[in-house]
Amino acid sequence: MGYKTIDEANQAVIDKMISAAPFLVDVVPAKSKIPELTDHVLLHAGPPIKYENMTDPMQGSCVGAILFEGWANNEQEARQLLEGGKITLIPCHHVNAVGPMGGITSANMPVLVVENRESGNEAYCQMNEGIGAVLRFGAYNETVVNRLHWMKDVLGPVLSKALRQMDEGLNVNVLIAKAIAMGDEFHQRNIAASLAFLKEVTPIISSLEDVEPAQRTEVLQFLADTDQFFLNIAMATGKAMMDAARQIEHGTVVTAMCRNGENFGVRIAGMGDEWFTAPVNTPQGLYFTGYSADDANTDIGDSAITETIGVGGMAMIAAPAVTRFVGTGGFEDALEISNDMTEICIGENPNFVIPTWNFKGACLGIDARKVVETGITPVINTGIAHKIAGYGQIGAGTVHPPIECFEKAITAYAEKLGFKA
Amino acid sequence: MGYKTIDEANQAVIDKMISAAPFLVDVVPAKSKIPELTDHVLLHAGPPIKYENMTDPMQGSCVGAILFEGWANNEQEARQLLEGGKITLIPCHHVNAVGPMGGITSANMPVLVVENRESGNEAYCQMNEGIGAVLRFGAYNETVVNRLHWMKDVLGPVLSKALRQMDEGLNVNVLIAKAIAMGDEFHQRNIAASLAFLKEVTPIISSLEDVEPAQRTEVLQFLADTDQFFLNIAMATGKAMMDAARQIEHGTVVTAMCRNGENFGVRIAGMGDEWFTAPVNTPQGLYFTGYSADDANTDIGDSAITETIGVGGMAMIAAPAVTRFVGTGGFEDALEISNDMTEICIGENPNFVIPTWNFKGACLGIDARKVVETGITPVINTGIAHKIAGYGQIGAGTVHPPIECFEKAITAYAEKLGFKA
Repeated sequence: MGYKTIDEANQAVIDKMISAAPFLVDVVPAKSKIPELTDHVLLHAGPPIKYENMTDPMQGSCVGAILFEGWANNEQEARQLLEGGKITLIPCHHVNAVGPMGGITSANMPVLVVENRESGNEAYCQMNEGIGAVLRFGAYNETVVNRLHWMKDVLGPVLSKALRQMDEGLNVNVLIAKAIAMGDEFHQRNIAASLAFLKEVTPIISSLEDVEPAQRTEVLQFLADTDQFFLNIAMATGKAMMDAARQIEHGTVVTAMCRNGENFGVRIAGMGDEWFTAPVNTPQGLYFTGYSADDANTDIGDSAITETIGVGGMAMIAAPAVTRFVGTGGFEDALEISNDMTEICIGENPNFVIPTWNFKGACLGIDARKVVETGITPVINTGIAHKIAGYGQIGAGTVHPPIECFEKAITAYAEKLGFKA
Repeated sequence: MGYKTIDEANQAVIDKMISAAPFLVDVVPAKSKIPELTDHVLLHAGPPIKYENMTDPMQGSCVGAILFEGWANNEQEARQLLEGGKITLIPCHHVNAVGPMGGITSANMPVLVVENRESGNEAYCQMNEGIGAVLRFGAYNETVVNRLHWMKDVLGPVLSKALRQMDEGLNVNVLIAKAIAMGDEFHQRNIAASLAFLKEVTPIISSLEDVEPAQRTEVLQFLADTDQFFLNIAMATGKAMMDAARQIEHGTVVTAMCRNGENFGVRIAGMGDEWFTAPVNTPQGLYFTGYSADDANTDIGDSAITETIGVGGMAMIAAPAVTRFVGTGGFEDALEISNDMTEICIGENPNFVIPTWNFKGACLGIDARKVVETGITPVINTGIAHKIAGYGQIGAGTVHPPIECFEKAITAYAEKLGFKA
């Protein structure tokens, strides 16, 4: 296999993760980067899924995207298209993309473009819409669709102009290194990185002469208000890192974790594009006032790409403040969680040094073998969606992948290597 | 004394600290708030000092301020004024102000105005000039003086307009609470709070119609580049908190700590305006490339007002990343330092909760009795100035007040209460 041992292959994979050089270079309409996004095509989060098996929020997101694209005049028409099989559904992960929660992405939505300069590959993710009623949680009312149009017509083009003014784009590793020392874990807490991003683009946006003053202020206000804006940059970065790392095509390092509300999907380097799936769990956590676990949707979204690269829940210790948001105790609990995660990882990332972990690097390279051997599954920090489309986020918590995903992956890889079960 | 015990008086002082409601409300010329700042008057850091006893950086700052005000045409004329006793020198602390490093402040320099809504008092501090050759470290070349003019003519007025657009100014406690969970200790690390400040003012500055586009971009670029901008806001806030707290006029809580390069000055609540002084120490720490301890100036500046309110070095555990900057080890060392500081403090501040300290509040109320009893002196995180004016900052480290200040204060207070030595 080009490597003498699985350990050697795994080391090659994590070397690619360490040497990744992700730069945020542009914001463009999705269709300009993803040729599959033609008329009546939607991307979704997680491994492949049929419309009828989607949970309500993801179905609602599909309706919203169709209304945004103008393929239907109202919800009823949109549902007819979806139920009649007139809409082609493709996982984001199959087209160099990732999507938060429902992950529903259509041709004219703007996407962040992260280029991995080490391997030359790119990855894409739509921009964070803020909180409240938003498409990613299944809302599709007029406010939601209007915001999507504003993101297409104003936010995307302004950020594109700003990013193109930078000589080489925005070095995402620098932002992550800075913000991981400021209490971010890049899944449920991105406040520092979002501010650091704002700081980088603000003077440039102010200097753009061809932007209307009112639009300039709208964009700056939106970025200032959107504490999770960086999450989607982190997701595209994670995808760009892992798609380069999985060029190795050997070994047992996890190269993707994602959820579609029905199934959790795992990929490992040695099994290429194959998904190993099992039914998703439902997040455990804290609920916003008026909601409870009875209202919670099952686990959903591609955002677990952050845990795949060793941040998110894996880096709980970097973000002790997040424990009060996701309901995992205090500082000592955060420390214990991250220490536990080292049991299933191969190394640590010297690029992402965590001062609160006594300057240890973030977890690097989840080894599916170790998950199976120890029974410890990765911890994922996640938003919790209401199970009915349109309510939006009702809490935040943690969730684990079903261990079956890892067992299936290891079994398949053993078979591929010629071991008999 | 209105309180049955010293403990009761001390509790009253820290209650005032907790209930303080500091709001950043404006940026104005110093003379408009400080009537003492007439022609040929300068404020300086620390307890009272004569010009001839100032260290070189503070003398250099005096020269720079005189050139900025136009009281002299060149350095030689400025020095003649100073050496001839033609310049009146007043401690910042005597006029509701604080000043970083040299602390030299003159009539037309813009100052931040922090109003303590609980007690109705105000405090003032000039704005951070950024890094490199700056007045506060004794530089007075043309670049430095030109920057001071830009701060007077552009930065100050733009920020004033922005702050006046806010209904009630900027709630500083909210910014501190947010940033203390993001690794700031507000003396040598203010990066999160400075970004949070940028976030608050950016959309407003963008919306100001009577600001020239080039000046708007200059201001936003300066704020984006100035990681320590919030330090001076924290200093004015500390002064506003402590000046309200020392209205109690009883007990042994430290109400000010400051240094003029010659002497360290301490005030305690029960002794009102009286300074208890002893010769300053020299900071220990890490030096920028090319400099060593031989180049270090003695301890200087009013910025220890941050430690007086329980942040700065006292809150080392909030900012483990700062330990690598001030040379105090790793996470465990930061924890030990803050734990030690609880030995000399009365309580903890519920407004400033530190996630990395398992959600314990910052130290509150340094008790001069406890300092004397334990021999533990407060730890101060500080910039290190070159001992020759104009070189600027050459490192960062920690420094302790001489314990004699606290011994003298306790002795004087005992005498005031009628105890014989």
